Amino acid sequence: MLKKHLLTSAIGLFCLTVQAAPPPSNGIELPETYKNWRVIGVSHRDDNDSLRAITGNAIAMQAVRAGKTDPWPDGTVLGKLVWKDSRHPLWQPALVPGELSHIEFMIKDRKKYKATGGWGFARWVGMKLEPLNNQGGKSCFECHQTAAKTDYVFTRPAPLP
Amino acid sequence: MLKKHLLTSAIGLFCLTVQAAPPPSNGIELPETYKNWRVIGVSHRDDNDSLRAITGNAIAMQAVRAGKTDPWPDGTVLGKLVWKDSRHPLWQPALVPGELSHIEFMIKDRKKYKATGGWGFARWVGMKLEPLNNQGGKSCFECHQTAAKTDYVFTRPAPLP
Repeated sequence: MLKKHLLTSAIGLFCLTVQAAPPPSNGIELPETYKNWRVIGVSHRDDNDSLRAITGNAIAMQAVRAGKTDPWPDGTVLGKLVWKDSRHPLWQPALVPGELSHIEFMIKDRKKYKATGGWGFARWVGMKLEPLNNQGGKSCFECHQTAAKTDYVFTRPAPLP
Repeated sequence: MLKKHLLTSAIGLFCLTVQAAPPPSNGIELPETYKNWRVIGVSHRDDNDSLRAITGNAIAMQAVRAGKTDPWPDGTVLGKLVWKDSRHPLWQPALVPGELSHIEFMIKDRKKYKATGGWGFARWVGMKLEPLNNQGGKSCFECHQTAAKTDYVFTRPAPLP
């Protein structure tokens, strides 16, 4: 009886602590630690009413702090956390995050992703993290052509003292 | 000669690596590690055209991940990084950070800051980090009364999977 109870508890604890990884997007796995990354910038798109935090892994942040992001070094991963905007109920002039739209990532590897400007593109949609698969991010890359002069990245690190 | 050269180099290195801390704001020192904190949310205020990243120290993030932010635990420090907004030159519908407006912090200590809802308020303005001193943050607290029902904090942690 005690054994059965302990086993059930152990399984319960395992299920609570180990969240299953979502399926890959364009062959890319969701970066496990993305919620711990640091802030590079923020943005608000008023064409699709979304608010964004732009974050980076350790290699990205080292480049940001050194001011060496053009080009970004191999190993850089940039994260974009995207929410639908909503008015703050207590402070109407403030637009704040509503529901999660998607999270997306750009992974720099000049060799591996040569066909798409040296960047891999991945996206997971909604709280269920449904992976986007769009021919290795070809449609992402098409849009990012606009930023070809800044290594295909729209984000400029926001100034901090 | 060599001694003098070594001494000059050492002083130069010291000056390069140790950035002087700015004067305190309302008796509060600038949190040294604030640029390494994690993202709690973002916002855009269209009354004063500013974009914000809201971040937290380790105690704040533990509370966020556990969903226990009402009230926030003692030791919480919330950071707000505020930039003037500007249109992205390559993507007009995107509002992105322009120049830095200010960085500000709320420090939770129910005893120390009893007179202002258990929160200390500090702000440094611009890239020169000029400290705000407004009678221990009394005018900050007056505005935050509006959020009295959520522990005087306007920010709700943005949902992430």
